[in-house]
Amino acid sequence: MREMLVRSLASRLWEQVIITIIVLNSIVLGLMTYPGIVAAYGPVLQFLDAVILTIFVVELVLRIYAFGPRFFRDPWSLFDFSVVAIALIPATGPFQVLRALRILRALRLISTMPALRRVVGGLISALPGMSSILVLMAMLFYVAAVMATNLFGQSFPDWFGTLSASLYTLFQVMTLESWSMGIVRPVMEVHPQAWAFFVPFILLSTYAVLNLFIGVIVSAMQQESEASASADRQVLHDDTVTILAEIRALRSEVEALRAEGAIRHGRDGETV
Amino acid sequence: MREMLVRSLASRLWEQVIITIIVLNSIVLGLMTYPGIVAAYGPVLQFLDAVILTIFVVELVLRIYAFGPRFFRDPWSLFDFSVVAIALIPATGPFQVLRALRILRALRLISTMPALRRVVGGLISALPGMSSILVLMAMLFYVAAVMATNLFGQSFPDWFGTLSASLYTLFQVMTLESWSMGIVRPVMEVHPQAWAFFVPFILLSTYAVLNLFIGVIVSAMQQESEASASADRQVLHDDTVTILAEIRALRSEVEALRAEGAIRHGRDGETV
Amino acid sequence: MREMLVRSLASRLWEQVIITIIVLNSIVLGLMTYPGIVAAYGPVLQFLDAVILTIFVVELVLRIYAFGPRFFRDPWSLFDFSVVAIALIPATGPFQVLRALRILRALRLISTMPALRRVVGGLISALPGMSSILVLMAMLFYVAAVMATNLFGQSFPDWFGTLSASLYTLFQVMTLESWSMGIVRPVMEVHPQAWAFFVPFILLSTYAVLNLFIGVIVSAMQQESEASASADRQVLHDDTVTILAEIRALRSEVEALRAEGAIRHGRDGETV
Amino acid sequence: MREMLVRSLASRLWEQVIITIIVLNSIVLGLMTYPGIVAAYGPVLQFLDAVILTIFVVELVLRIYAFGPRFFRDPWSLFDFSVVAIALIPATGPFQVLRALRILRALRLISTMPALRRVVGGLISALPGMSSILVLMAMLFYVAAVMATNLFGQSFPDWFGTLSASLYTLFQVMTLESWSMGIVRPVMEVHPQAWAFFVPFILLSTYAVLNLFIGVIVSAMQQESEASASADRQVLHDDTVTILAEIRALRSEVEALRAEGAIRHGRDGETV
Repeated sequence: MREMLVRSLASRLWEQVIITIIVLNSIVLGLMTYPGIVAAYGPVLQFLDAVILTIFVVELVLRIYAFGPRFFRDPWSLFDFSVVAIALIPATGPFQVLRALRILRALRLISTMPALRRVVGGLISALPGMSSILVLMAMLFYVAAVMATNLFGQSFPDWFGTLSASLYTLFQVMTLESWSMGIVRPVMEVHPQAWAFFVPFILLSTYAVLNLFIGVIVSAMQQESEASASADRQVLHDDTVTILAEIRALRSEVEALRAEGAIRHGRDGETV
Repeated sequence: MREMLVRSLASRLWEQVIITIIVLNSIVLGLMTYPGIVAAYGPVLQFLDAVILTIFVVELVLRIYAFGPRFFRDPWSLFDFSVVAIALIPATGPFQVLRALRILRALRLISTMPALRRVVGGLISALPGMSSILVLMAMLFYVAAVMATNLFGQSFPDWFGTLSASLYTLFQVMTLESWSMGIVRPVMEVHPQAWAFFVPFILLSTYAVLNLFIGVIVSAMQQESEASASADRQVLHDDTVTILAEIRALRSEVEALRAEGAIRHGRDGETV
Repeated sequence: MREMLVRSLASRLWEQVIITIIVLNSIVLGLMTYPGIVAAYGPVLQFLDAVILTIFVVELVLRIYAFGPRFFRDPWSLFDFSVVAIALIPATGPFQVLRALRILRALRLISTMPALRRVVGGLISALPGMSSILVLMAMLFYVAAVMATNLFGQSFPDWFGTLSASLYTLFQVMTLESWSMGIVRPVMEVHPQAWAFFVPFILLSTYAVLNLFIGVIVSAMQQESEASASADRQVLHDDTVTILAEIRALRSEVEALRAEGAIRHGRDGETV
Repeated sequence: MREMLVRSLASRLWEQVIITIIVLNSIVLGLMTYPGIVAAYGPVLQFLDAVILTIFVVELVLRIYAFGPRFFRDPWSLFDFSVVAIALIPATGPFQVLRALRILRALRLISTMPALRRVVGGLISALPGMSSILVLMAMLFYVAAVMATNLFGQSFPDWFGTLSASLYTLFQVMTLESWSMGIVRPVMEVHPQAWAFFVPFILLSTYAVLNLFIGVIVSAMQQESEASASADRQVLHDDTVTILAEIRALRSEVEALRAEGAIRHGRDGETV
């Protein structure tokens, strides 16, 4: 029976049903952001949401039963599990913010549709190659944030009062948003040399981001060119195999010639 | 007669005439944006515009007659058709905005000049390769917009009051325009943890855009390198063909040698 | 004598002297931006500038004499000529702005140093490959500017009052500078549907810029890979030449074998 | 004894210890930015910092003793030396800003961890290839700054009053931060033609940055493709070697055939 459950859960039809439900759920949660619609159809939408959540819970329970411990080893299954689990926590008091996270269920579309799963897998697989530059950027941000807090924290507590405020402001500066008119020009009115901190920070962080970027492009290209190079090598190899076959045929012919010569010679000797 | 019409509509001269008229029309519509010029030469410009529109309509009618149903299967022809059709809708009442769309006729330059048509074709042909990342971005935007409306809609109705307001604001945040000083810092004064929503959103959306970008570069490169690789393979193939011809010549020579040996042997036998 | 002049004007020493003078001139013109320095050393700096200008004029006259009409065919020479000519126009009345253009002489460094000339040549040589996308962008800007002037010109004369104001504002929007908080949100308060004009404009123009960008990268890569491919083909060709030489040697050996056989056979026949 | 010191300073264990101390120091300096924590644990943190600084000084003295003049020839050692030396200058009076530089010690992580050292080395090694474009950009900025100071210095002393103010403002304009709403629109109210200076400056500087960018990508790719091309050539060479070996074997066989023929002929002659 488990076998059968595994097969039907992995079937094309079941996938279609789940995709339809996810899309329906996303629309329902989207409609629930309009106060007018909630006033008119609130109970209907809420009932629909509860039904869909129940379906999701049942589906998860079936999958856990069908796949057993394998379920918890698949990262996409864990993703589905946590996205549904969020909706089960009573969204009251400090957890009220969790209500807003219900829409994360729409992301189940990614784990359900193989095409999207592959794209997201590709995006994630590019990350490890960037790890050393990400570590460098983390260091750059930490060092710059400690310096900025020490240098400008007292004069500009809103922007550089704490380490986390500085980190946020430096992130904003790195995205170049209002870095000069909004942040550095006001700072320079108190600390005229502040540009000597911010301009190098901008140059270093954008250069690092640029190199992140380049890393991703180069590795994407490399995969492409690797594939095309192996095709090239195949062509080359086929050509070599053809040439070698031809040479070997020739060689066996020469060998035959030699053998015939020897036989003939033997016979000739006899004859003579 | 239809045959003749097709030939003259596709002729180089007709193309030149139409291009001249399109450029003239663009200039006329440009001049009509200056109130001073309209006050002085308004009727002249309007007459010119009407004459040109008539030419366009006549040209379209001729093309529909000449090409028949084929006309409606060519996307560029449909483009020409709709751009001219817009001008024929009476621009009164709610349709007054259509007057501003008359200038879209200038875009007929693209459908008329083969060089531009090829470039636009190239730009469009790159889109299907991006479809999966575009779907992911649409999901990211929808999910983020529902969350933002739920979380910040009540405090900031102008930015996050409705789903569409949230979508617009998130598009602005993705382009990094005033995202921090204009949007997130004010939001953080009410919801101090708002950065935990916006900073990941910025990182995810820019990473997705970056990957769109990379996809386009990689596919452009791939086409280039595909062309160059096939040239390489041609060279390789030519070389292989030369070597094989040489080997085969050699082989036929060896065969000749063998045959001569056999003949000689036969004759030798006879002689002896 | 002309021959000698040509040789000395192209000599390494003369180049060094001119470079030194250009750098000195740039420093002098830089110092003249400080009112304090001008108050103290104004006449000295002005004298130096006049002396350097005289040297430049004399050098140009010598070059025109030495190279004759060839001088006016070299774009870099014309650049030097116009940059010096600017300084000779009396900078009074409406031409006062020309005083600020004297510093353009510093750009003679580009035409004088071969390394820089090559880099600038490279940057310019990438432009023709972009021409079709640049034409498309020009059309996009013109069409969008006419539409924006018609749609928003009356409500926002400062931004969209004239065609040129619209072009400038759209350029700003394309660079994403304050496009939303500064321009589109205020416009949307009068025309709530304005986003339907600006968001597509941003998407189209950034996609076009992206493709400009990609065109430059791809053509730069192509040159690189062309060079490396031709090196590859050389290696391949060398290999083929070696193989063919070996096969031909073998063939001549087989031919010799055949000839020997024939001779032997002849002699055998005679012997027998 | 020196030998032993060199070996233990380069040992894996010592590296681990130093890395731990650097991380600890970074945390301590991070905590010291929180006034609350400094009030409660100030003396403890300051003691820890002093202890760690002592360890660093001792380590440096040992390394200088162990490696001798070689120490001062390694750029990473000089980096460690200067980063520690900063902390030893009494941070009083005008040097108070140096206190903020203590956190630069965290960057010792780069010089200590080989993986990070390699990444930073890679980032630095890409710079020389950009030198000619960097020189061009420096010239562009200098020329534009002198022009801007002459043209707009009197009307906008805050932005263009001095050469350095102009350089800073032009850097801001190049990053596109508030270039239009913040700078150029106000300037255009006094000098209506100011766009004719700023728009070309933006186009030129972004085109130069773009080319910097492209240079880095192309050289990164080139290294990749160089590696893959040399692998390709190896495959090609191996194929050629195989074919040549086969041909040579064939040749020696033909030679043997010829020799046998000659022997046989000789013997035949004798026999006959």
